[in-house]
Amino acid sequence: MPSQFDPPSGTRDFLAADVDRREHAFSVIKAVFASYGFEPLQTPAFERLDVLLGKYGDEGDKLIFKILRRGEHEATGEADLALRYDMTVPLARVAAAYGSQLPTPYKRYAMGSVWRADRPGKDRYREFAQCDLDTLGSASLLADAEVLAAHHDAVTALGITDFSILLNSRRVLAGLLAAFSVAPEIGAAVLISLDKLDKITPGQVADELTGRGLGTGQARELVGTLTAPDAVDQVRVALTKTDEGSAGLDEVDTLLSHLSGQIPAARIAFTPRLVRGLSYYTGPIWEVVAAGVSGSLGGGGRYDHLIEQLGGPDVPAVGSSIGVERLLAQLPGHDDAAPARLDVAVTVLRPDLAPQSFAFAAAGRSAGLRASVYLGASGKLRTQLKWANDTGARWCVIYGEQELEAGAATVRDMTTGEQVRVPADELGAYLARAAGSER
Amino acid sequence: MPSQFDPPSGTRDFLAADVDRREHAFSVIKAVFASYGFEPLQTPAFERLDVLLGKYGDEGDKLIFKILRRGEHEATGEADLALRYDMTVPLARVAAAYGSQLPTPYKRYAMGSVWRADRPGKDRYREFAQCDLDTLGSASLLADAEVLAAHHDAVTALGITDFSILLNSRRVLAGLLAAFSVAPEIGAAVLISLDKLDKITPGQVADELTGRGLGTGQARELVGTLTAPDAVDQVRVALTKTDEGSAGLDEVDTLLSHLSGQIPAARIAFTPRLVRGLSYYTGPIWEVVAAGVSGSLGGGGRYDHLIEQLGGPDVPAVGSSIGVERLLAQLPGHDDAAPARLDVAVTVLRPDLAPQSFAFAAAGRSAGLRASVYLGASGKLRTQLKWANDTGARWCVIYGEQELEAGAATVRDMTTGEQVRVPADELGAYLARAAGSER
Repeated sequence: MPSQFDPPSGTRDFLAADVDRREHAFSVIKAVFASYGFEPLQTPAFERLDVLLGKYGDEGDKLIFKILRRGEHEATGEADLALRYDMTVPLARVAAAYGSQLPTPYKRYAMGSVWRADRPGKDRYREFAQCDLDTLGSASLLADAEVLAAHHDAVTALGITDFSILLNSRRVLAGLLAAFSVAPEIGAAVLISLDKLDKITPGQVADELTGRGLGTGQARELVGTLTAPDAVDQVRVALTKTDEGSAGLDEVDTLLSHLSGQIPAARIAFTPRLVRGLSYYTGPIWEVVAAGVSGSLGGGGRYDHLIEQLGGPDVPAVGSSIGVERLLAQLPGHDDAAPARLDVAVTVLRPDLAPQSFAFAAAGRSAGLRASVYLGASGKLRTQLKWANDTGARWCVIYGEQELEAGAATVRDMTTGEQVRVPADELGAYLARAAGSER
Repeated sequence: MPSQFDPPSGTRDFLAADVDRREHAFSVIKAVFASYGFEPLQTPAFERLDVLLGKYGDEGDKLIFKILRRGEHEATGEADLALRYDMTVPLARVAAAYGSQLPTPYKRYAMGSVWRADRPGKDRYREFAQCDLDTLGSASLLADAEVLAAHHDAVTALGITDFSILLNSRRVLAGLLAAFSVAPEIGAAVLISLDKLDKITPGQVADELTGRGLGTGQARELVGTLTAPDAVDQVRVALTKTDEGSAGLDEVDTLLSHLSGQIPAARIAFTPRLVRGLSYYTGPIWEVVAAGVSGSLGGGGRYDHLIEQLGGPDVPAVGSSIGVERLLAQLPGHDDAAPARLDVAVTVLRPDLAPQSFAFAAAGRSAGLRASVYLGASGKLRTQLKWANDTGARWCVIYGEQELEAGAATVRDMTTGEQVRVPADELGAYLARAAGSER
């Protein structure tokens, strides 16, 4: 039952443990991308509406969050801005705007929220993080290999090892259609049906293909080849029949050769039936999948004319999108026990002792620890020790009348209950030593 | 002249050097907040419109970016969501939604973009970063002192030392109005005029006060006291005349005492004429200023009933907002020379040598360096060395026929031009050593 204080439908509030978990994952991914020489790009949360409209098809247009004009124009009910729907259209705009200032090739990553007015559901959000890496300005398969290797390394750096990369090429698919004598004008429709091979039965796909204009035998043969146990071998034979098919096979094999030392052979497989929905791919395509996870954990490919279609310059391009929300869902969650909020909790037993208590907390911070004074109203040690315990602090620094007279602090080990008196000016060093010996 | 490829008015694209600069500053600030035991909170970019409307006054309402309803409702021209305008209203919503799950006190920081449809201008953006820290649930001045100390430490951690903190209290202002016999019903209006003492002349302020109902002598005396060279002493005397004034003075002095070891005395000053525009403050207020910088670099104060007014529970609260965009503007900019994009540039002189070139790049990354292979179309060493130079790489790893035969790589120092032949399987160790000796 949603409450009036819930975040808007399809969005999430992230409290401390979730923020820490997400930011850790993002920083791991960023470090991998940076190590490959990809550089960060950050664009605004919204773009002019006309920059986004018409770029994602009619269905996509409906999912764009539009921003109402302001001031006297608000009453028109018209929109002039819209929330970022993906990272690719902003990349095209940036390529057009800053062309000569950007390095060639321009290797960039983008990490941040995108917004889509999808119907919210399990693991489907209206605000979610996207994490893309793209290389603009290189037509070489070396660029495809690099993007794929960086994507692969980012996933393993997160600690995920049980995954596979399915690899194919749009040129392989074109060669395949040619080998099975599919008329070019129904090629795209045939691919849409083949894309369903992992969702519906081969028979159903064959029926759909017949509906799209293929002969019954032709449809069965095509589906049979793609779903045979030795599908790859059969497809390889079929592809050698046409120039397009041979070129596609060459593309896949060159890419696999480039990656031979980068990605374990068992983790990447030529998968002729991989289609990927988006129509803009022009060369290699790939998808990251994991056993027991429905849908993909990311994917990408080469899209040599898209940047121009989106309003940018005509540059070859290849990119990959890390399915970062799905990867986050695969990572082990934080345990239910609340994580420690502090390392060092410092009592304030009398208001006039506060300056020294603050100084003790500062000494803890200088030792690289998280430290804070008690902020409540009670002057009782018992209450303050309970607070120290609640924060998960490893040490409680007690400073009362006795310590004032002795020019010292009492350090209580919150696990063992042992207490040690430490001269006031040695507290930082003491805590640094104690923390160091625990690491 | 804006181009069609510029980001929307009032927003910015951040290319690599800017992203790096900003993220470095944000991470420095976060580390300080975390060291004080403040925890992160991330709320969605948009809230339901009714959560935001009416919270920022009529002027504020006009500056809210509203999001059009979707689907069949889009044609109504109505909005149901709106972009985050600040971090405080979302905090109140979170306090209401997760009350019992949050620690007491709840010390949180929030860092991220907010959006305001202000007229864009120099250093005034429609999308800009905010960075707030707040403590909910402590009525103690210890909490005010902690927030102030953390704010202070964040600014110095950024490398900014030439700044001051102006400190006052709403109770001091109330006591001051009482001491000068200002009728309570015009108190708020009088404070609005006094807030202009740093923008218009004392005479103009006195005239405004007369217009608001003060006697001519009364107005001159009040303004004279606040602008006198010994204003603080005069105000201290005046405040002792009333209980409210004495309480306010006590508040300021206790806070200064708490902070005595945290903030250098020369950097914080009781400033009776400090008003701060927002009406919701109930206790101490402060502002961070720097010589030569107009406007403030941040500020905050205690606002004990605001969270309830915003829809949250009735908890005492104190917070501070780091003026992070202004602080960023104070930091030394990156120099015009493009920063190095790579540490190690690896040639690809023949397609069949690519796997080994990729392996060399991977060896560089294992050594903690940024490394990438050449992605262009040329097979010429000269062209590839030019590319290596353009990336700013420290070393170029050359791998051609001779190296293939020798089972080695040639490492060229891009600064000196010296070349060394290194066995292929020792390249990572060699680069790690070379990089280590430079640090």
